[in-house]
Amino acid sequence: MTQKKYLLAETDVPEQWYNIVADMPNKPLPPLHPATREPIGPEMLAPLFPLELIKQEVTTEKWVPIPDEVREIYKIWRPTPLFRATGLEKWLDTPARIYYKYEGVSPAGSHKPNTAVPQVFYNKQEGVTKITTETGAGQWGSALSFACQLFGIDCEVYMVRASYDGKPYRKMMMNTWGASVYPSPSTRTAAGKSILADHPDSPGSLGIAISEAVEMALHDEQTKYALGSVLNHVLMHQTVIGLECVKQLEQAGDFPDIVVAPFGGGSNFAGIGFPFLRYNLEEGRQIRCIAAEPASCPKLTRGVFRYDLGDTVGMTPLLPMYTLGHNFIPAPIHAGGLRYHGAGAIVSQLLRDGLIEAQAYNQLQCFDAGVQFARTEGIIPAPEANHAIAAVIREARQAKEEGKAKTILFNLCGHGHFDMAAYEQYLSGQLVEHEVTQAEILASLAELDTPLIA
Amino acid sequence: MTQKKYLLAETDVPEQWYNIVADMPNKPLPPLHPATREPIGPEMLAPLFPLELIKQEVTTEKWVPIPDEVREIYKIWRPTPLFRATGLEKWLDTPARIYYKYEGVSPAGSHKPNTAVPQVFYNKQEGVTKITTETGAGQWGSALSFACQLFGIDCEVYMVRASYDGKPYRKMMMNTWGASVYPSPSTRTAAGKSILADHPDSPGSLGIAISEAVEMALHDEQTKYALGSVLNHVLMHQTVIGLECVKQLEQAGDFPDIVVAPFGGGSNFAGIGFPFLRYNLEEGRQIRCIAAEPASCPKLTRGVFRYDLGDTVGMTPLLPMYTLGHNFIPAPIHAGGLRYHGAGAIVSQLLRDGLIEAQAYNQLQCFDAGVQFARTEGIIPAPEANHAIAAVIREARQAKEEGKAKTILFNLCGHGHFDMAAYEQYLSGQLVEHEVTQAEILASLAELDTPLIA
Repeated sequence: MTQKKYLLAETDVPEQWYNIVADMPNKPLPPLHPATREPIGPEMLAPLFPLELIKQEVTTEKWVPIPDEVREIYKIWRPTPLFRATGLEKWLDTPARIYYKYEGVSPAGSHKPNTAVPQVFYNKQEGVTKITTETGAGQWGSALSFACQLFGIDCEVYMVRASYDGKPYRKMMMNTWGASVYPSPSTRTAAGKSILADHPDSPGSLGIAISEAVEMALHDEQTKYALGSVLNHVLMHQTVIGLECVKQLEQAGDFPDIVVAPFGGGSNFAGIGFPFLRYNLEEGRQIRCIAAEPASCPKLTRGVFRYDLGDTVGMTPLLPMYTLGHNFIPAPIHAGGLRYHGAGAIVSQLLRDGLIEAQAYNQLQCFDAGVQFARTEGIIPAPEANHAIAAVIREARQAKEEGKAKTILFNLCGHGHFDMAAYEQYLSGQLVEHEVTQAEILASLAELDTPLIA
Repeated sequence: MTQKKYLLAETDVPEQWYNIVADMPNKPLPPLHPATREPIGPEMLAPLFPLELIKQEVTTEKWVPIPDEVREIYKIWRPTPLFRATGLEKWLDTPARIYYKYEGVSPAGSHKPNTAVPQVFYNKQEGVTKITTETGAGQWGSALSFACQLFGIDCEVYMVRASYDGKPYRKMMMNTWGASVYPSPSTRTAAGKSILADHPDSPGSLGIAISEAVEMALHDEQTKYALGSVLNHVLMHQTVIGLECVKQLEQAGDFPDIVVAPFGGGSNFAGIGFPFLRYNLEEGRQIRCIAAEPASCPKLTRGVFRYDLGDTVGMTPLLPMYTLGHNFIPAPIHAGGLRYHGAGAIVSQLLRDGLIEAQAYNQLQCFDAGVQFARTEGIIPAPEANHAIAAVIREARQAKEEGKAKTILFNLCGHGHFDMAAYEQYLSGQLVEHEVTQAEILASLAELDTPLIA
């Protein structure tokens, strides 16, 4: 009888994070100062991040030790289970073997605590008393609130207004863990006020919320800022996901031909993908790593590779990224965690070098995939995760057409318990599709005067 | 370093349920026909339940085999983890060792699928095409919807109006798994219409919703009814929880002095408690098994032991139970799953015989316990589970006063992801206490003309 899930012992929680930079043929380009356009040194980041995280941001060491204190907290939910998607396989009638890593078992319900915990740990070590951040759908804000609660650090979250209004349970979850949550744009910051002056009814965006959180961190020496994706150290922390999968697939006597993850800023994709991409880089294997992004926010499939700001107002360095332009306001899809204009530097370089793939999926297609998954596997996925499921279904059907028993692995990055209203819209036929035209993308990109990359 | 959690392999999913009836010194009294007041035979239950479940309802076999098909589905989430509550212990500064079994990892988010899956399986085997049920907060309705989806059976849920309006996400979850959900009292049944005629604004109750679901099942030969607690076979299915705990505590090299569970109709309590109570009954051990009920619905601590109806309208047999009277409408506490007037026959007999204990906790006390748990252990508990946590905190403080290193085990029966509005009320100081006076209880009991038990 096929085993349904593969579990590891607590002793199998990884002891090191994997830093793919060490293995990349072309290293990611350096961040630039937004005014001088010169590469910035680590010291420029000191007002925002603790020293240890800045070191991790620039390290080229292949393996970075995970502190014991962090591993102890990881054990609350790690190792997470790897499931064989027997129900989905049967429904698809595919020769493909489909596995999913389920990160929704974490207290916050997604993979985000994998980086929230170490980030808060290093802040605590360096005497920080408060951390600010932004959040879209609320997955990252919840994770940081949870981690701050465990370490006794104040947490201040700027939540994109559209999600603040539409997903009140996420806000309440953060409150339960003791965090303060403000809708963004807010009147607490100059950035927020400037947006509200022009757009009093602004629904907000991740770019705006980042501007606000960064501004608040710059006010006070004991306050730092934390980001839930995009940056190198964040992506690295997530590699615990894929490192566990390697061991679990060994248990299953299997190895992936294809690895899939949803794509917002890159941490989800890096988490499950990089530990397998390592086999391509080290041994010349040919595992296909696919980033599944929303068709309405298609930076990887329709954006350009150039320097751009990480936020809307311009408080961050210029980063080398696939981007739709920092003024691009993504349509209000339910996968709030994927509504970001750019991609992290590492992932952008890998895509540029043809080492990974990207695919874009429409909202309706994603919810269709998510409902089929809920009905065949039981778990109701987060809207972000539905993008990966849509890609998996496509690849599994392809495998059937080719008559090949491919092994497909994907990251079921979170549950959809706070997104039921979106499922209700889908089931009642009220979910709308959001298209983005080429003219809109070109108009957004035309506003950029940031450096191109040869 | 203390291990945080204890995991079992899929091969450790129990192969048999434990039927405590075999070990009880005094067997539960038989159900009576509501009109004749004579003991009813199994055949009287045939319009409502498939034959195999009726057999399980009356069996005195100690071990009942779990079908392979059911075990395969159990493996989606079973074995569930057993956690050591290291964070809570530290906060309490107690010498007690606290463990919790976490049933919130099931797709529906509680222990309820443990019985929903076998119930639907046996219905499917006997050609049933539709199952009706009631649900309070929605945990049971979700579990049954999930199970029906897996077996391709239609599911019709009568959801207590107060919860239907207050917890819309639960309804949407059931819809996602393909179920039809109606607020109860509804105009679909004679029972619902009769209630609405007298009380057009009735918030509903579990007793009323049971009447509606039973009525609908009686209409049609291919339609049966399923109950989420109270009955013997339901309690027995839940023993997989405690049977796994026995193995997990062996791993930990520990054994409980005290076992605690929330109490609604008895399935939660039976699930974790009976496999340990077995050691008391078989070997004369002295494990304390504590049922934690809401102070506003105190059937175990302030009810009487007599025959009473399982529902409000009178469509069920008379069952021997600790009861507040079947017309008792419990206050609208957030722990909707515990808002039931009576207790199952087995648990009632065990309490009558002094073999188990009961304690009652106020709503505010329970949410206070739940928030402390969320802040120290990470997981946000269901309001039902908070009753167990309140009891555990009390017992752990007692252990500290006595300077005794007692081992306490409890069932964290579900997560609170659909109950965040209740937490928000608590955190903002708006959660109200519900008292029930002795006069109210006596008035409800005075309406009963059902047989007393000597």
